[in-house]
Order: sequence, then structure tokens, then C-alpha cells
Amino acid sequence: MDAAAQVVVQELAHPRGRTRIVSGIGVLSATSWSAEGANSLADWLAGRTLFILKTPHVDALHGARLASLCGAAQRVVELVVADGEGAKSVRQAEQLWNAMLTAGGKRDSRLLTFGGGSVGDLGGFVAGCFLRGIPYLQVPTTLLAQVDAAIGGKTAVDLPGGKNTVGLFHHPDWVLADTDLLTTLPRSELSAGLVEVIKMAFLLDLELLARVERDLEALLAAEVQALAPVVAAAIAVKCRVVMLDPEERDQRRWLNFGHTLGHALEGVLGYTGLRHGEAVAYGLLFALRLALLRGLPRPAAERLHQLLCRLPLPALPELDALALVDFMWRDKKATEQGLVWVLPQDLGRGVMVNDLGREQVLAELRAFLLDPWSLPAPRT
Amino acid sequence: MDAAAQVVVQELAHPRGRTRIVSGIGVLSATSWSAEGANSLADWLAGRTLFILKTPHVDALHGARLASLCGAAQRVVELVVADGEGAKSVRQAEQLWNAMLTAGGKRDSRLLTFGGGSVGDLGGFVAGCFLRGIPYLQVPTTLLAQVDAAIGGKTAVDLPGGKNTVGLFHHPDWVLADTDLLTTLPRSELSAGLVEVIKMAFLLDLELLARVERDLEALLAAEVQALAPVVAAAIAVKCRVVMLDPEERDQRRWLNFGHTLGHALEGVLGYTGLRHGEAVAYGLLFALRLALLRGLPRPAAERLHQLLCRLPLPALPELDALALVDFMWRDKKATEQGLVWVLPQDLGRGVMVNDLGREQVLAELRAFLLDPWSLPAPRT
Repeated sequence: MDAAAQVVVQELAHPRGRTRIVSGIGVLSATSWSAEGANSLADWLAGRTLFILKTPHVDALHGARLASLCGAAQRVVELVVADGEGAKSVRQAEQLWNAMLTAGGKRDSRLLTFGGGSVGDLGGFVAGCFLRGIPYLQVPTTLLAQVDAAIGGKTAVDLPGGKNTVGLFHHPDWVLADTDLLTTLPRSELSAGLVEVIKMAFLLDLELLARVERDLEALLAAEVQALAPVVAAAIAVKCRVVMLDPEERDQRRWLNFGHTLGHALEGVLGYTGLRHGEAVAYGLLFALRLALLRGLPRPAAERLHQLLCRLPLPALPELDALALVDFMWRDKKATEQGLVWVLPQDLGRGVMVNDLGREQVLAELRAFLLDPWSLPAPRT
Repeated sequence: MDAAAQVVVQELAHPRGRTRIVSGIGVLSATSWSAEGANSLADWLAGRTLFILKTPHVDALHGARLASLCGAAQRVVELVVADGEGAKSVRQAEQLWNAMLTAGGKRDSRLLTFGGGSVGDLGGFVAGCFLRGIPYLQVPTTLLAQVDAAIGGKTAVDLPGGKNTVGLFHHPDWVLADTDLLTTLPRSELSAGLVEVIKMAFLLDLELLARVERDLEALLAAEVQALAPVVAAAIAVKCRVVMLDPEERDQRRWLNFGHTLGHALEGVLGYTGLRHGEAVAYGLLFALRLALLRGLPRPAAERLHQLLCRLPLPALPELDALALVDFMWRDKKATEQGLVWVLPQDLGRGVMVNDLGREQVLAELRAFLLDPWSLPAPRT
């Protein structure tokens, strides 16, 4: 990759404005991207209270990197939450709203999320509902959050009955995706993030798919020269889809490829044991199985299957097919008209399917759980 | 008023669609308005789960009136909350989300709010965040909710530190404002609702102001022939303002006339003792006092003052000026740049003012609290 591509500035237009997304190597160092952009960000913060939502873990590793950015705000108020999905509760959101109100938060205050997907989801929800919505900025610190969760305005917390069941669409004004932050991630976390990249690439960007296949080892080794162009390309795909369909009524749902079963796996496991991206990987494998039944060409299925096989993913715990099916049929991707699946028709082409019956899915799922990593043999 | 004006259909266009607002006598009886409109509403409900959020009080008085409307839904799930501001809590919202999820609520389910402003605010918030937003319908049962709270997409719950501090903009698809529902309201509730009408009329519709002055006794006596055109006209004013400024960045803030002190009165009283509209009446009186200092012509001030004097409003409890000022400066209408007041410049013209210092407001407030019902004598 060339030096010019080290930092990429993209823009996502949405119904209420635009998100400026800056990604690449050293984004958080003010000198690394254009003076114009940095000034614009400084203007956004000037005279404001800046709330920073972060976890102890990320703060210890990278907190110092925020210093130059925060200098532009009038004052900074730190809000600390626990790592992981557990922080995404209504109670946690309520505590944060109370803290922000008590600290003198106003309608024109700003919020910055500094963490992975959980912190971004929670922070976006908190920003979206505080005083009916304050502007916010995402600084995603995981690969998954940089390429997916931080882009597109989806915010959420969880209920006992399901993940991301409470939330709203509230786009950040800024996303700063600094690939330097990814260098401290474990290989398993990078692998989980790559699942979302692969999901998008397979249906929406075959050039990106080829790049991931080519650079997989460098990506898993957190080499920023390999990561930066992949992050930028994945952001570009996501922006394109979100702009066409900001509130997920149509093509944006392609991004849910692998998520129907993926969410159920997470839910039935109680959101422990598998990372989100890892659960989605199994969801992709199961979707491939369903797609093969509906005519997905075998070479296309094999290409995705082989790439997923190269990722260091944990084994799937033993699970009850019926519990998974029950969970899926309660899922928010279910409508009154039935459960929606995103299935590939071919490389670069998805389709939404809602006519798969419960019994059929249950039977396929039982077979899948016996041997999730094998592609089923062609049936005649 | 003529027979044709008994039911009025209006439309509010907003960034994410439109709200159809049907107001007047007998709206909830399917035969009272156009077959086309009724069919369209039936389509909106067909095949859906309809959640109905209501209070025991309103349900006992008017629950049967919903029957013909609900018949179009596939199934109805009732959700009951307590009357009043107390129900507008994050905890209550969380309980409702859990109940809706457990009852099988989906992204394409519908919610209907059946009650006053509190139920509408809470229900709008619950609908706005359930599975990132489901469509909803407001059936406001108080004058205040029909002319103000149900129109414009503001939703909210309260935190201990302030009213309406958590919420979002989420417009209903439908508002059905049936003036028959107002006939069981006590005179004091009608009076409180008229305060919001007067507030809008004074700055934005002088014809409506004259109508309220003329018909005041009939309005306070809940005569539907008097109420229907006032409700329709007030809705028209609110729609016009909201369409020009959907997220309250400019002229929509004129609707906050009387609310800067009004909210503080409610807050310092712990949301008991004064109805919202009653608190706003005192807020208007105080705003008149500030406006006179800044050149509001005395005849204009006297006109509003005289009309407010004709309303049966309770006396203002004894209150500490300093506590009120503290509350206002923490209010969500405060920005980092200062507290914003909406003051009349003349009949039909408001202005936003943010350069009133704390000390000045405190001094004026002390004088006001000694005798809220007198207009201060001209100063030289």
C-alpha cells in the first residue's frame, strides 16, 4: 500500500446529516491527517463539555492517545463502564444519564466512545437519548468496531430476552478508526473482526475478499500496513450500503448475513464463550448450508468456507438445536411475516429469504451442529 | 362552527415520513370520518400485533371507544401503567420493553398510546427504542396532549435530576384526537390545556387567540362544538412550526414560551401540586415580566395577562427563588452558551434571548414570587 493511503477520510451521508470517518495509521495523532480535518474536529469540541465513555482495559492500554484530541474541549468528564456485553443494559444507560445530568451535561455537550462494539453501542444509545440526543464521536478500538459496529448509526443495549433489543438509529458525527489501536488485540479478536469483513466482502466487494485472502496472515498478526487498507475498504462498503438504506429496510439487511444464527448462538450461550464475530462465523457456515440447498454454486460456497477455515476460531460448544430455533423465531429480525435470512445466491450477490419453515431449519440445524465445519455433500 | 369542520384531517411531514392527524368530534367512531382514512388506518394495523399503553383511569372511562379501531389488528396486547408523571421513568420503560419482547413484539408491531401527555411521552419513547423503533399511534385523552404533547414527535421519560431528560424524536404515524374524550375532564384540566393553546396562539396565531378569548367559557365547560375548532387550529399551528424546524433548533423553540420557569416550578415542586399547564401559566406571567423590561408593548402584555386571569388556576405555592434559578440553569434548555428564554416582542412575534444573567433573573423572580398575578408597573 502507498503512503497516501495510510489515512483515509470518508463521509457517510444520512437523513440527519453526515458522519466523517477517518481511518488508518496514526489517526489519533493530530499531525497524521489534514490540518483542515483536525481543525474541523477541534471546532466541534470547542467550548463543549466532552464526556468520554471507556473501559478500564482500553483506558490503561491507549488512554494517553486521546490527549491531543481532548485538548480542544472546554472540559472533559470521564465515564467508566465494565468491558464487554454486560455493560449494555438499560440500568447502565440510566446510571450514565444520571451521571451526565449531574455533571452538568447540556444539549450541546459531546460524547466520545472509546472501546469496542459494546462501548460504542451503549455510548451511541446514551448519546441518542440524553436530552433527546447529543452529538457523539466514536473511537473504536477493535477491528470489529472499526469496520462494522461504529459505522451506520445503530445503537443498542440488551434486555434479558435478547441482544440489541433496545436502541435507536443515531449516527455519530465522527468516527476515528486508528489502526494503531489494533496492535494490542489478541489474534482471536482480530480473527473475530475479520469475520465481519469477510461477510461484507463476500456479498459486496470481491476485491476486498481477494485482499483478505491474500493478506490473512499479516492481518491476524496486526500489521497495520495490512490492516489500514482493509479497514478503509470495509468502511467504504458499509457506508455505501447504509447510504442506500439508512434504516435497514432493504439492502442494508445483507449485512446481517450470518447473523440470524449468530445472534441465537450468542443468546443461547448467554453472551459468553463466543465473541460476536466468532458466532457470526458459525452463522455464515450455517447460512452457506441453507444457501447450497437453494442453488448457491458450490465453488462460491467453497471459497467462503475455505477462508473461514483459515481463521483461528474456537470450537462450537454443544448446543440444543431447539433452543436455537426458539431464540431465532423470537429475534428482532423476525417480523410478523416470518424470520428473515440473508443467503448468498452467488459471489457478490445476496437475497433475503423469509419462507424457511421452522421444521426445515430445525432439521438442518441438527445436522449442522453435528459437524459445523463440513460443507454438506451435494444432494440429488 | 360548521358541520364540515367537526372532523379535520391534517398532515405533518417530518424527516422520516409523515404523521396523519385526525381531530374533532367522534374521531374514534369509524363512521365519523372518511372511509379512505379509516381504510388506511386499518391497513396500518392489519396482520400486526397492537400494543395498547393505557392507564386504569382512562381505560375505565373510555376504553370501550377503542374497540372499532382495534378490530383491524391481528391481536391486541394491553400494557397498563399508572397515571401521571410518575410513570415516566427509565425503569417503567424497561419493564414495558421486557413485556413487549416476552409477548412476541416484532419490528413491525404497532403501539397505541391511550392517555394524557405522560402516557404519550412514555409510549413514544418506548416505541422509539423498542427494536430500534416501531411505528406508533397516539390517542391523546387530555386537551393538553391533543393540542401539544401528541404532535411533533417529542418523546421522553424523566430522571431524578430533571423532567424529559431522556428521550428522542420519534413521530407517531397517526394521531387521533377525539374531542369526545375531553368531556370527562375536570375544568382544571381543561384550563391547564388551554394554557398551551394560548401560548401558541399569542406568538403564532392571533385568530386562534381571539377565538379562545371569545369561547373561553364554552371551552372550560368542555363543549365539543367549541373545542373541536380550537383543537384543530392549535394542531395546525404546532404542525406548521414543527415542519419548519423538526428538531427544535430555531422557531420550534418558540413553543417553549413560558416553559423555562414552568419546568423549574414543576421540578422544584417535585412534579406534584401543579399541572404542567398550570406551571406554564406562571411561566408565561414571568416571561411577560421579562419581556416588558425588553420593550414588549404594554397592551400586548395586558391582553395575555387578562386572558390568563380568566382561567381557574390554583395559587402558586411558596417557593424559593434560588432553588428555581438553580434548577433553570441545570435545565436541558440551557446550553453551554447560557439559558435560553422565549420572550414575546409583540403580539404574534417571539424572540430567543440568552443574555439574561443569573443575578438579574434571580432579582426579577423574587419580585415575581411576591405577587405573581400583577403586571409590574412601567419603569422609567
